[in-house]
Amino acid sequence: MKIALDVMGGDHAPNHNLMGAKLALEEITGLEKLYLVGNEDIVRTGLQGLGLADPRIEIVPSTQVIDMVDASADALRKKKDSSITVAIDLVKQGLAQGVFSPGHTGASVAVATLRLGRLHKVERPGIASPLPNEHGICNLVDAGANPEAKALHLVQYAIMGSVYAHAVQGVERPVVGLMSIGEEDEKGTDLTREVFSRLRATDLNFKGNVEGHHLFETPLHVVVCDGFVGNVVLKSCEATAKAMMKWIRHEIEAGGIRTKLGALMAKPAFVNVKKRGSYESYGGSPLLGTKGIVIIGHGSSSPEAIKNGLRMCAAAIQKEVNPHIEEAMARYFP
Amino acid sequence: MKIALDVMGGDHAPNHNLMGAKLALEEITGLEKLYLVGNEDIVRTGLQGLGLADPRIEIVPSTQVIDMVDASADALRKKKDSSITVAIDLVKQGLAQGVFSPGHTGASVAVATLRLGRLHKVERPGIASPLPNEHGICNLVDAGANPEAKALHLVQYAIMGSVYAHAVQGVERPVVGLMSIGEEDEKGTDLTREVFSRLRATDLNFKGNVEGHHLFETPLHVVVCDGFVGNVVLKSCEATAKAMMKWIRHEIEAGGIRTKLGALMAKPAFVNVKKRGSYESYGGSPLLGTKGIVIIGHGSSSPEAIKNGLRMCAAAIQKEVNPHIEEAMARYFP
Repeated sequence: MKIALDVMGGDHAPNHNLMGAKLALEEITGLEKLYLVGNEDIVRTGLQGLGLADPRIEIVPSTQVIDMVDASADALRKKKDSSITVAIDLVKQGLAQGVFSPGHTGASVAVATLRLGRLHKVERPGIASPLPNEHGICNLVDAGANPEAKALHLVQYAIMGSVYAHAVQGVERPVVGLMSIGEEDEKGTDLTREVFSRLRATDLNFKGNVEGHHLFETPLHVVVCDGFVGNVVLKSCEATAKAMMKWIRHEIEAGGIRTKLGALMAKPAFVNVKKRGSYESYGGSPLLGTKGIVIIGHGSSSPEAIKNGLRMCAAAIQKEVNPHIEEAMARYFP
Repeated sequence: MKIALDVMGGDHAPNHNLMGAKLALEEITGLEKLYLVGNEDIVRTGLQGLGLADPRIEIVPSTQVIDMVDASADALRKKKDSSITVAIDLVKQGLAQGVFSPGHTGASVAVATLRLGRLHKVERPGIASPLPNEHGICNLVDAGANPEAKALHLVQYAIMGSVYAHAVQGVERPVVGLMSIGEEDEKGTDLTREVFSRLRATDLNFKGNVEGHHLFETPLHVVVCDGFVGNVVLKSCEATAKAMMKWIRHEIEAGGIRTKLGALMAKPAFVNVKKRGSYESYGGSPLLGTKGIVIIGHGSSSPEAIKNGLRMCAAAIQKEVNPHIEEAMARYFP
């Protein structure tokens, strides 16, 4: 398969991106071509620094970068030669099947939606963010692509999320939940109540309303919500986990010698917990519903996260998630 | 001051409620009267079991209980003699100045709003949930009273939250944030953008848009959002903290003898972190905007949490939060 990497996006670009590319070339089987999109000199120098020369690499020059302060639309208007726009255009041109960027999420969503276009019948693409559930992965859709979503969009997120969980994550019959404020059927807002009745009328494995604790404790593969709620939930969960780890560190530092020694001895347990809660092991979140595979990475992606984002991209291509989504959309919206 | 306690509400009623009442009578200064509202036999038997006889106690009988499966409106129609309705009516009658219930949140909000009425100019009461921020307490308003809020409601939450943080929590000039999906001014939805421009036009100490991590790390005293978002955020943060603690426990159990021994030695640090993240130390969340003080407790309140909820109620009465809110509302909405 052929994948494009936005080398300039993310807090640690281009270094982490190139280190991640190196790992990906070593580990991902079936990777025929890796387009490295970015400032040509910077990419070339970075590759030399890493001693990385691989015939599967092709540098695709771009002269601009979308910064975090830029508006999403800038990637379409003022910065048409930005690395993310050029990388996505490789997919549009059919040179790559998928793209991975740990850069500006809004820009990735805007460029992918407008330049690649939406799969047939898809109203709005949605970001599926993987959460570490006890029973596997819980995909939160939408995690921020569509902050003012309508009922139909959420229904489509349930369908696309289920297809993704089945095709890529191998879940036989994905369990779908609707994020709400109370588990009882009638709880929620006008929006969630409409989505509830529409989902109940489908043959999806719809569990009903869910709340925070279900994300982590209940067998649940897809949770749908509008992009505002999803983004806020995702960031709040991440912030809570970070705060907890920080408090534990503080309490250990403030503790006696006994506490400090104990913590040192128990360190492997903390390392494992941190790993478990980290986005690093997933690498990214697929944007579902665009023509071509688009994986969005965390801004602070490590080389390992970059590699895993590229791996996620490879899996989505290999498992043909888009043909499966098109098939499902044709069935649900004939 | 005179306070009513809903003895029948909550997962551990009436036991924890009565044990909490005992602690409150021992510890809260200025408590002249504590109305214990619930099934008379059950309350009497419970008091005997605790050996609790205090002249400040008055049992107020009620024959019904709002269960978690009941609709909020049931407390107003089918179950008019429920403990929460009777307790709130004591405030309406002027016999108590405040009420605390760890029971059905929706019922408390509905009964308080309709039977006590709203303070002058308040459109919709909102729940202010305290979050453990590094620099003090961050009050998240609204945490679930008003899931389909309009811009004006959020502006009023900013005002009432600021008054509460100043009058009760002693914050000189409370910093207010608006929950959004990105820190930049223009980020968010039509709703948040309207709230943003209205808050900017006030003399409140408005910081702008905030995200998950600000809740815990940034000096911030009030964060406003609609009740759907607030409730989902609150429950998701709580769920994340719980999941983290569970994972740590699992990893320690799965670890070697060295890890287990270390964890045992470092235990005091964990206990402190758990305490810090727990609602128990706050006891409850005030419902801001109703005539009379209403504090809503967590369903699984411990006796300590019940005591602290009553303490929160006492403080809101003592610090005259409602007269202060009325004054502020008159100033902002002349």
